[in-house]
Amino acid sequence: MPDPDRFMRQLDFILEIDRLKTVLRQTVLTDASRRENSAEHSWHLALLALFLQEHAAEPVDVTRVMKMVLIHDLVEIDAGDTFCYDEEANADKEAREQKAADRIFNLLPADQAEELFALWEEFEARETSEARFANALDRFQPVLHNLQTEGVGWRKHGVTLSQVLERNRPIGEGAPEMWAYVEKQLGDAVARGYLVEDV
Amino acid sequence: MPDPDRFMRQLDFILEIDRLKTVLRQTVLTDASRRENSAEHSWHLALLALFLQEHAAEPVDVTRVMKMVLIHDLVEIDAGDTFCYDEEANADKEAREQKAADRIFNLLPADQAEELFALWEEFEARETSEARFANALDRFQPVLHNLQTEGVGWRKHGVTLSQVLERNRPIGEGAPEMWAYVEKQLGDAVARGYLVEDV
Repeated sequence: MPDPDRFMRQLDFILEIDRLKTVLRQTVLTDASRRENSAEHSWHLALLALFLQEHAAEPVDVTRVMKMVLIHDLVEIDAGDTFCYDEEANADKEAREQKAADRIFNLLPADQAEELFALWEEFEARETSEARFANALDRFQPVLHNLQTEGVGWRKHGVTLSQVLERNRPIGEGAPEMWAYVEKQLGDAVARGYLVEDV
Repeated sequence: MPDPDRFMRQLDFILEIDRLKTVLRQTVLTDASRRENSAEHSWHLALLALFLQEHAAEPVDVTRVMKMVLIHDLVEIDAGDTFCYDEEANADKEAREQKAADRIFNLLPADQAEELFALWEEFEARETSEARFANALDRFQPVLHNLQTEGVGWRKHGVTLSQVLERNRPIGEGAPEMWAYVEKQLGDAVARGYLVEDV
């Protein structure tokens, strides 16, 4: 083994990120049996990236999209999952997540930590076509789960149509066809009472 | 939307694979709080691929390794997780998994189903450097979890050192340095009583 210290740092990181499997989101599985955790959510997004890439607004390097969605929630290990419709919790989200990234990413050897910071910051900034598509997928998947489960997550928190539209508009930036589909489905969801109409 | 039927097939597949989150493995999380599911396991492996790629026996296209580990367990949605030390269940594993692949992969449009079959068959055949490394990771991660949890999974099933050595030898083919680490750790695990010595 050329550099045991380097390998040990990598293993520390690998073991630490196992904790993402215990971070629960507000979204439930499509069979509504339980809440989804952030690790399996990230897995799902990577496969959405792979099989829905043709719907990206602009051509994307799918490898970078996959990497971004696989790592985008790692900061939740320390910062927790912040419910997207909770305004108070979102106020200090950025500071909490930055602190988490500093601790968790730096478990890795410096060159790999740097690569991880770059990926996460790209995802958060939404300035590249890959980041816009990755963010679109991250919004699209929970909407899909809500539509599939008659709005379990929405109904539990009394979420309204205008909130869902506002929150998910980035789907339109990263994947316009997918957004057109969502807008149509949201109309049906309101008609069926899964979502409160307020617009 | 250029081809609604194509998009609907993709969505059917995306919704179907959500069920992998409910397939439980024998391995427990590193905090031993519960059994791991195959979706979060696949997520973990993709990050092992990304951050341990330098330890592959031969140079690898890490994108293909990541894709393979992300999809390698999809067949378990129908075929279930087959415990690696259960000889009886392993006898008809291949036939059950082939049938599962035929149903699940073909939910996708034909070109994407074909891509998925190719990836899965490459993983299973272990003939490319990418497949050998992907298989090494798939064996390495549960060993790591067992070492971290004082052998919870091993002790529950009375697994022996020779079984672990036999099962995990592919780590040596795909990632010799990681195998050297495992062999050393297994010696310690036996000394501490987490693993039955029989060799």
